[in-house]
Amino acid sequence: MNSPPKQSGPSIRAIPDGDTRERLICGDCGFIQYDNPKIVVGAVVLWGDRILMCKRAIEPAYGRWTIPAGYMELGETPEEGAAREAFEEACAKIEIGALIGVYSVPRIGQVQMIYRATLIDGEFAAGAESLETMLCAWDEIPWDEIAFPTVRLALDDWRRTKDQAAIVPNLKRF
Amino acid sequence: MNSPPKQSGPSIRAIPDGDTRERLICGDCGFIQYDNPKIVVGAVVLWGDRILMCKRAIEPAYGRWTIPAGYMELGETPEEGAAREAFEEACAKIEIGALIGVYSVPRIGQVQMIYRATLIDGEFAAGAESLETMLCAWDEIPWDEIAFPTVRLALDDWRRTKDQAAIVPNLKRF
Repeated sequence: MNSPPKQSGPSIRAIPDGDTRERLICGDCGFIQYDNPKIVVGAVVLWGDRILMCKRAIEPAYGRWTIPAGYMELGETPEEGAAREAFEEACAKIEIGALIGVYSVPRIGQVQMIYRATLIDGEFAAGAESLETMLCAWDEIPWDEIAFPTVRLALDDWRRTKDQAAIVPNLKRF
Repeated sequence: MNSPPKQSGPSIRAIPDGDTRERLICGDCGFIQYDNPKIVVGAVVLWGDRILMCKRAIEPAYGRWTIPAGYMELGETPEEGAAREAFEEACAKIEIGALIGVYSVPRIGQVQMIYRATLIDGEFAAGAESLETMLCAWDEIPWDEIAFPTVRLALDDWRRTKDQAAIVPNLKRF
């Protein structure tokens, strides 16, 4: 008689044969999990001189404000991922421009790639992961309720470079 | 009596509750594998006007030439990963400079981030993953035996920008 699935997943730390690092291995099935950093893609999205902001409907930072951003998926480029996230979080069709910044957050295994973008038709609305969406002038951004430090930096980097046709991205470690 | 481990790993395609995409799920233990794109980090490494090249001792492209590059690991920044790869593949201590290019290869789920760098002390040697290493003048690069198209582009992007203090990286889809 087979034992029922144990739901344990890769939970044993060991160095696989031929490797040099500890990986998580499943004690049930032997699967080796190669965890690598994840890419977060996002955009500072403009309509005229106003910026698209989203109030998060999910944790972490539920109820706080962010630019549209999320995990890049397989089969897309970073630019395509940033456009997809703007559509999912803010029902917004956007055109991606220059790369503003590459922010490394090694503590949580993330590399964030943030682009400049424009709304294509001015349409937007709260998607499933947002409580609310809005276009803000710079001084209307809810600075005291920003979700993550990298969001603030992305906005600052956008403002510093907004009159430049081509951008040397800010490579910043958090 | 427990059944022996089946070594199957995440191999069943299904959309987990609350998700929107098919993921691979393990039929033995229920583990859900979230596969995201992987980041490859590398560097065009200079010593004077010569470039550090490595002859690959591993597949794919065994025996062909590349710049030092490899998968970014957890706990490091892309710059730290590129420096680690240069040390592993060419026993080279390097100082990382500007970001030359971000090359997306969605077909194989990769984003490659390539930096300009310099050898710190001129020392280098073949590491475990290299058959041979060498410093080449531009015309000495073994152009007919380059491992990957992105290596050729990285070299071209380095040459085009080599006199610039700050670089607008080439954002290129393969």
